[in-house]
Amino acid sequence: MEMQKFKAITDRYDVIFFDAYGVLKNSLGVLDGIERTFAYLIEKNIDYYILTNDASRGPKALAQAYVEQGLEMIDDNKIISSGMLATEYLRLKVRTGTVTYLGTQKSAHYLEELGLHTLSIADLNLADTDAVNALVFLDDEGFDWNHDINKIVNLLRVRNIPCVVANTDKSYPVSDDKVSIAIGGIADMVERITGRMFIKFGKPDAQMFIFAYEHSQRAQEAGKQNILMVGDTLFTDIIGGNKFGIDTALVLTGNTLRSTVEEQIHLTGIVPDFICESAVID
Amino acid sequence: MEMQKFKAITDRYDVIFFDAYGVLKNSLGVLDGIERTFAYLIEKNIDYYILTNDASRGPKALAQAYVEQGLEMIDDNKIISSGMLATEYLRLKVRTGTVTYLGTQKSAHYLEELGLHTLSIADLNLADTDAVNALVFLDDEGFDWNHDINKIVNLLRVRNIPCVVANTDKSYPVSDDKVSIAIGGIADMVERITGRMFIKFGKPDAQMFIFAYEHSQRAQEAGKQNILMVGDTLFTDIIGGNKFGIDTALVLTGNTLRSTVEEQIHLTGIVPDFICESAVID
Amino acid sequence: MEMQKFKAITDRYDVIFFDAYGVLKNSLGVLDGIERTFAYLIEKNIDYYILTNDASRGPKALAQAYVEQGLEMIDDNKIISSGMLATEYLRLKVRTGTVTYLGTQKSAHYLEELGLHTLSIADLNLADTDAVNALVFLDDEGFDWNHDINKIVNLLRVRNIPCVVANTDKSYPVSDDKVSIAIGGIADMVERITGRMFIKFGKPDAQMFIFAYEHSQRAQEAGKQNILMVGDTLFTDIIGGNKFGIDTALVLTGNTLRSTVEEQIHLTGIVPDFICESAVID
Amino acid sequence: MEMQKFKAITDRYDVIFFDAYGVLKNSLGVLDGIERTFAYLIEKNIDYYILTNDASRGPKALAQAYVEQGLEMIDDNKIISSGMLATEYLRLKVRTGTVTYLGTQKSAHYLEELGLHTLSIADLNLADTDAVNALVFLDDEGFDWNHDINKIVNLLRVRNIPCVVANTDKSYPVSDDKVSIAIGGIADMVERITGRMFIKFGKPDAQMFIFAYEHSQRAQEAGKQNILMVGDTLFTDIIGGNKFGIDTALVLTGNTLRSTVEEQIHLTGIVPDFICESAVID
Repeated sequence: MEMQKFKAITDRYDVIFFDAYGVLKNSLGVLDGIERTFAYLIEKNIDYYILTNDASRGPKALAQAYVEQGLEMIDDNKIISSGMLATEYLRLKVRTGTVTYLGTQKSAHYLEELGLHTLSIADLNLADTDAVNALVFLDDEGFDWNHDINKIVNLLRVRNIPCVVANTDKSYPVSDDKVSIAIGGIADMVERITGRMFIKFGKPDAQMFIFAYEHSQRAQEAGKQNILMVGDTLFTDIIGGNKFGIDTALVLTGNTLRSTVEEQIHLTGIVPDFICESAVID
Repeated sequence: MEMQKFKAITDRYDVIFFDAYGVLKNSLGVLDGIERTFAYLIEKNIDYYILTNDASRGPKALAQAYVEQGLEMIDDNKIISSGMLATEYLRLKVRTGTVTYLGTQKSAHYLEELGLHTLSIADLNLADTDAVNALVFLDDEGFDWNHDINKIVNLLRVRNIPCVVANTDKSYPVSDDKVSIAIGGIADMVERITGRMFIKFGKPDAQMFIFAYEHSQRAQEAGKQNILMVGDTLFTDIIGGNKFGIDTALVLTGNTLRSTVEEQIHLTGIVPDFICESAVID
Repeated sequence: MEMQKFKAITDRYDVIFFDAYGVLKNSLGVLDGIERTFAYLIEKNIDYYILTNDASRGPKALAQAYVEQGLEMIDDNKIISSGMLATEYLRLKVRTGTVTYLGTQKSAHYLEELGLHTLSIADLNLADTDAVNALVFLDDEGFDWNHDINKIVNLLRVRNIPCVVANTDKSYPVSDDKVSIAIGGIADMVERITGRMFIKFGKPDAQMFIFAYEHSQRAQEAGKQNILMVGDTLFTDIIGGNKFGIDTALVLTGNTLRSTVEEQIHLTGIVPDFICESAVID
Repeated sequence: MEMQKFKAITDRYDVIFFDAYGVLKNSLGVLDGIERTFAYLIEKNIDYYILTNDASRGPKALAQAYVEQGLEMIDDNKIISSGMLATEYLRLKVRTGTVTYLGTQKSAHYLEELGLHTLSIADLNLADTDAVNALVFLDDEGFDWNHDINKIVNLLRVRNIPCVVANTDKSYPVSDDKVSIAIGGIADMVERITGRMFIKFGKPDAQMFIFAYEHSQRAQEAGKQNILMVGDTLFTDIIGGNKFGIDTALVLTGNTLRSTVEEQIHLTGIVPDFICESAVID
């Protein structure tokens, strides 16, 4: 496929959805010059949202991290995270009682705004679980893996409660050359071991795109033909956007390398509408 | 879990989504007395839709089959089929050219309303595939399995086109004691053999519930708290409804038997909000 | 990894196991010059066997096809096929009664030497299945896919009999640019649809290597350190040989291409001991 | 299926393979009266072996635990563990250098008899991995899950070395009502996250049965028809034994409950030759 200039394709759309990691930022922080992209979109009156598989913090804290790096045009209204979908599920289907979670206190903070009582898995007493109405996988930090993942497996033997995976990613980069296992990878292991079927949120699942779509319509009504998804990963951003019926652009600043992009598209059958070097506009 | 009377729970909702097979009908036709259920819903001003994994016919033909069996309150506006989502995908993402399909002519008829040219896989010439822009799995009849499924595998070796699965079910009942492999089972085999990632539509995927939800809002605005999904299958109807954030009722007139329902809920961790003997109101 | 001359590495071994397709032959027939390889091995007193995922014919017929192409040093004693393992299973565990099969009459011929009565799935009457003690997937030809694969699914609803997959390959080449779905791909679909667990034979499963190993020991006692597996496919020949504890050589005359071999080894973590252009000795 | 007395069926066999957990012992120790079973087998000159998915200790230490509970007829010659197969793999295919492992020092002790240098993952320095020639998953204890499982994922990004799973079980009981995640469950997670293909040992894989079979032949030549596998789990002991071509007996003192045994056999299609209440002989 021919490479396109990102700027040249933006003009066709009213709304652009961006993946975060590998598109707007990498392990060193936001990409050099990415502020020019947002300035251009604002100038052209093209709306934008960040769709991110992340439940480590609420949207306010996620937006704040961009602002601190100079992207003051990103506020919490521009953030669509998989954690927000998990929260919406708990609001609609669990409603009351205690939710036990894997993650940091910071990741659970956002849930408490719903009026749910949250309890870290580290503090759960397996002999006293009657009040626990749901389990949520939020973040890979904030608990002892050995002790607390085993605690979950045993919790599910005595309580048949909904298990919500607030981020389906299996790993994430922590530096230029290292990755960490993400909470989605841990949830996947527990699901296989227990045989239970978990409720999962995150790209490429359609629910993430719908949530963003409905959210975006409040600011500006746009048909699906006028929305573009920009991502660095065929298996989440591109197939998810394609299936939802919007156009997709693959950028080569993250998971997909220029040297193997053609072969990957050929092997997987996941074809973006466009391929661009980067989402940074010169 | 305690068994509930279906009538007793309907009053809490503004809109009810019904699965078709195992809930409204079985291999002998529509369930005796199911017309009383719809009469009651109409009397109580509760809206209703049928959500069905089916791409063998368009919504008009699906509705007509209910009318012919005495359910004149089912028109095409009440039908939400996985085939409609596949059609919507083709409209948004393929737009022009030829779509080759597995299925009967009847199943493809509905696609032609989009202005797409359709071509049965049986009539495809592998030496002349340049105009083919998509492949759609519609129905398990209308083609020679041995010859034409192999033809697809070879088509995908020369053309990297979107492959759309318009019904993800793996099998369906054809009589009281026999089943047939459904097109979703065939598509699954081809996906594994080719290694490609297909675009799939049908419960439990969220996109089916969204489509129904948006459709239902045209008639009557209803919050998700006021919608009930009624199904006979934990793995499609119930987990899909739960994840979408609406209430769910499991009925025991189809795939799930009274003798094993408690164990199945325990083993899978998929818990409906209600269990009812049947959706038929006395 | 560095490329090796095949001749140079053979001298270290007492016995060599060869995969068939992609190593000794391709869609045009046996590779030009492959007879020189066998002549050299005989000269050096190195024993050799062909390990093939194939149940379309018995070992005599498989050997005969090599002889007809000029490889008169291949007799049935040199053939180890997945079909032979399936036959051994039937001999040990089924013993009597009728075995119904998917495949040609030719593929079933070999089973009858056991004294089992064989019945093509095409001739099975679903209303009269009491004498059927096993189902065997032998070959993708000889039956009507649409009618007879559905017949199997319904057979397994009424009879809980062992289902034996005599070749786990999912596809095979039929010409320079076309493939066919193999019986292993069909069996895989039926297994998923019925939820049953089938008994499967073929590389990379250890049982195939054991069978070859025990067979080879009759001619010449050789430690595992003195046996080499030569194959064209990382996922069957190489990982199977590695796990069995013998050395492995990957050749580039079949499934694995020179341009992507390094990346495939890196992505899969399946590392052969040697890589050679071809098993043909100049 | 009809229930059989265990004693009544033993007489037909020359050799009996026993699973350990759920057959000979449970979380409280060896089953009351199981010593009578072994006394009877010795009296009748029927040989016996314990086939166990366990790599937490070498065969001597595993046997010692039985002796300490009064089963002095179990010595290390009667133990066939998945850890022994992993060790055999390392001896044949790795041979030299350092093997890094997940597990306790006790679990690695057995490997050192091969002359390999072993290094706990806890002590591995990611900046100095050149001498590491293999990774082995031995036991779920002896390392920090959070820190060290992530270390493995990053090790595999820089070194393409064989990864050996010495026990494929996903969980194991630690008390009457609690389980722990086993090393096989952790290995499964790492395999999915890295995309690499690991070398795995343990029932139901044929290699375990072959190892036991060859081992048993040293004491007494027995055809497969004269060997019985006794286990409590359809998915490991029974399907593994069936596929290997030996007879199988399911006992109801472990994973499989009397109340659901018929349904499980029906759903899975895994049919033992016999079902017995227990392997304890009155």
